[in-house]
Amino acid sequence: MRSAAVIGVGMTSVASRSDKNLAELFVEAAKEAIDNAGVDKIDSIYVGNMMSGFLQNQEHLGALMATALGKEGVPTYKVEGACASGGVATNAAVKALLSGLEDVVLVGAVEKMSGYTTPEVTAGLMMAEDRLKVASTGVTFVGLNAMIAREYMHKYNVTHEALAEFPVLCHENAFDNPRAQFRKRITVQDVLQSPSVADPLRLLDCSGIGDGAAALILAPTRIAKKFTDSPVEITGSAVSSDTVSLYQRVDITTFEASRRAAKRACESSRITPEDIDVLEVHDAFSVLGIMALEDLGFAMKGTGTKIVREGQCSRDGRLPTNTFGGLKARGHPVGASGVYQIAELTLQLTNAAGKCQVSGAETGLAQSVGGIGGTIAVHVLQRMD
Amino acid sequence: MRSAAVIGVGMTSVASRSDKNLAELFVEAAKEAIDNAGVDKIDSIYVGNMMSGFLQNQEHLGALMATALGKEGVPTYKVEGACASGGVATNAAVKALLSGLEDVVLVGAVEKMSGYTTPEVTAGLMMAEDRLKVASTGVTFVGLNAMIAREYMHKYNVTHEALAEFPVLCHENAFDNPRAQFRKRITVQDVLQSPSVADPLRLLDCSGIGDGAAALILAPTRIAKKFTDSPVEITGSAVSSDTVSLYQRVDITTFEASRRAAKRACESSRITPEDIDVLEVHDAFSVLGIMALEDLGFAMKGTGTKIVREGQCSRDGRLPTNTFGGLKARGHPVGASGVYQIAELTLQLTNAAGKCQVSGAETGLAQSVGGIGGTIAVHVLQRMD
Repeated sequence: MRSAAVIGVGMTSVASRSDKNLAELFVEAAKEAIDNAGVDKIDSIYVGNMMSGFLQNQEHLGALMATALGKEGVPTYKVEGACASGGVATNAAVKALLSGLEDVVLVGAVEKMSGYTTPEVTAGLMMAEDRLKVASTGVTFVGLNAMIAREYMHKYNVTHEALAEFPVLCHENAFDNPRAQFRKRITVQDVLQSPSVADPLRLLDCSGIGDGAAALILAPTRIAKKFTDSPVEITGSAVSSDTVSLYQRVDITTFEASRRAAKRACESSRITPEDIDVLEVHDAFSVLGIMALEDLGFAMKGTGTKIVREGQCSRDGRLPTNTFGGLKARGHPVGASGVYQIAELTLQLTNAAGKCQVSGAETGLAQSVGGIGGTIAVHVLQRMD
Repeated sequence: MRSAAVIGVGMTSVASRSDKNLAELFVEAAKEAIDNAGVDKIDSIYVGNMMSGFLQNQEHLGALMATALGKEGVPTYKVEGACASGGVATNAAVKALLSGLEDVVLVGAVEKMSGYTTPEVTAGLMMAEDRLKVASTGVTFVGLNAMIAREYMHKYNVTHEALAEFPVLCHENAFDNPRAQFRKRITVQDVLQSPSVADPLRLLDCSGIGDGAAALILAPTRIAKKFTDSPVEITGSAVSSDTVSLYQRVDITTFEASRRAAKRACESSRITPEDIDVLEVHDAFSVLGIMALEDLGFAMKGTGTKIVREGQCSRDGRLPTNTFGGLKARGHPVGASGVYQIAELTLQLTNAAGKCQVSGAETGLAQSVGGIGGTIAVHVLQRMD
C-alpha cells in the first residue's frame, strides 16, 4: 500500500503581518515549501483555513490561492475543521495521495487574525461552537476553556502554578525560533501576575492573535527520495470528532477525540507513545497542553504537569514538546497551526531545526484541536533512513 | 483498483425553510440517504457548504453535523469550493474511498440563504471572487455573469430569446419535481419581460435564493451490491480550477476548468460526450447553462442554444438536461447544488425519478461551477448491471 511523505516545508513568521494579505501570506509559505522540495509540478492544493469567510469576507480559497501561486488549473480544496483546519487539511491531502490519483500535493494553511477588534476575533473563534445553542449565550471561547481549567484544577487538585509551567516551557523554546510571535522568556510568576482574561485563565495562559501561513509538499513515499535525501514519512494520519459543544460531554477534562485519533495514528504506525521522540500539542490554553500530554498517553490523568515540571518536555528531556514554541509562543494563526506543527516536526526529524534542534529524534507526533475538542487531527511522522 | 458507488441519496425540498436551521436541514437529507442505503455505520462525513461563516457565523460544520446526526466520533471534514462546494466535497469523499481507509462515507451539503436581506446574500456570494481586487469595486456576482452574457451574445450573435430557452426548459422539468423551488411553467416572453437584474440578465435568467440540503452515501463498488440492488458507480470524478477572477481570463465565454474536469472524468470513465444519456449542468444563470453544453462537448461554441431549441435537452430528447429543474427551478442553495445534481442523476439511473424519469439512461454527467468558473467539479455516473 502507498504511504505519504513530507518532501518540503515552508512557514512564515507569525506576527501582525499587515504587510501581506491572506493570499500573499499563503504564497510566501507555499513558495518556500515548493523551493524546499524542489518540485515544479503540483497535482492538487489543499488549503486549511477557519475564519476567512467571517473576517475577510473571502471564500473560494482554493482557486484564490492557486491563482496567487500561478498554479490555476490544478484541483483545489478548502478544508475547514475550526482551529484544527490545518491538521484536517493535511489528513485529507494524505488520503488524496493514498488514492493513487495524485503524486505531488501542496497543503497550505493560512489565517489572518490581526487588524480586527478583539470582539470581532472573539466572535470569529466562537464559530467553532454551536452558534444557536452556545455562542448565543454570550460565552466566549476563552470562557469555555476557563471552565475546563477550573474543572481540571478542582478534579485533580492541580494548582495554577503547575499549569503555568506549560507556557513557560513554550516561551523558553520560542526564544530560539526566529519565526515565533513571542520570543521572550517568562516565569510562572509572570503567568500568574498577567491580566485576568477569564478566571482562572490569565493572559499568559492563552495563545495570542496573529497572522501566519505554513505549507507542506507531500509525495508518495516510494518516490520521495527522488526529491530529497531526507524525506519524512507520515506513518499515521487520523481525524476524529466529538460532540461540537462542551455541555454535551460527560468529562470536560479529557478530549475523547484526541485519544481516538492518537490510537489510530499510532496503530497504523505500529508504535506506542513510548516511541515518540518529539511532540507538538495544541496548547491554545495552558490546560490544553497538559490535557494533551495525558490524552495522548504520556502521563496518567491529572499528572501531566508533573512531567513538565520534571523537565521531561524540555528540548533536552525525554519528550521534547512544542520545540519551536507551540501555539502559545510560536503563535496560533488558528487554521494554520496544524500545518506549522507538522512542518516543525519535519525540521526536527531532518536535523534542520537550527537552534531549536533536539538530538536524535526519529519519530514525532502532532496533535491539532478544532473547537473545544470537537475535531482532532493526529499525525505521526518518522524519519526515513 | 477501487472505485466508488452511490448506494443511497437524500434531499430536502428547496424553499425558504424557516422551519429548520442549518444542522436540521443537513440531518433531514442525511437521514434520508442513510435510510435509502440501509447502512448503520458511517466511516466519515464530508460536509459541503459555502456561506455559513458569513451568513450564519458558524464554522466547524463537520463536528456540528456529526453531532446533530448522532454520529460524533467519526472523521469529519468541511469542504468549500464556492458554489461548487457540494461537487468538490463529493470528489474529496471519492478520494477518501479510493484511499482504502474508509468504506461507507456520507457526503452531505447544505446551504441556508433565506431570511437575510438581498444585499447580505449578494455580499456572501461575492466571497467567491477576489475580495480585495474585484468585490471591492462594487460589482456583484450577477453583474459578472451579466458581463459574460453580454459578451456571449455579442461574440456569437445569439439573442436573449435564444438564451431564455434554458430557464424555460428547467421550469418545465421542475413542474414534475415535488422538491423544486419553482414549480411553475414559464415562457420565453416571461423571461424577457421579467424585471431587469443586471442588464442583460432578467430575473428569470437567474437562479433564486433558497435553503436546502442533499446527501449521498458512497461505498466501494465491490461491496455496493450488499447494500442495494441498484448501485450507481462513480466512474469519473474530477475537479479543476482556473483563475479566481473573471478579469484574468482571455475568453470569458468559456470555462476552461469545465473542459479540463470533463475531459478527465470522461477519460477515467472511458466514454465520450456521445455516451451521456442524462445531464445536470450548473445553470445559475441562463448563459451558464448554454456555455456548459458547449464546454462539456455537446455543442460547438456559440451553438448551445440550438440544441435546446430543437428539444434535444428535453426529457424526451437525445440529451435530457436538468431533469429535475436544475439550479434555475429546482433551486440553488449554493454549496448544496453539486450534491443535488449527483443525487438526481442517481435517481435517473436507478429508475427512481418518478414523474421526472427519463427512459433507459445508463450514463449521467454532472457539472458544478464554483465562483465565476474558478473551481469546477465534474462527475460521471454509470448504472451497474
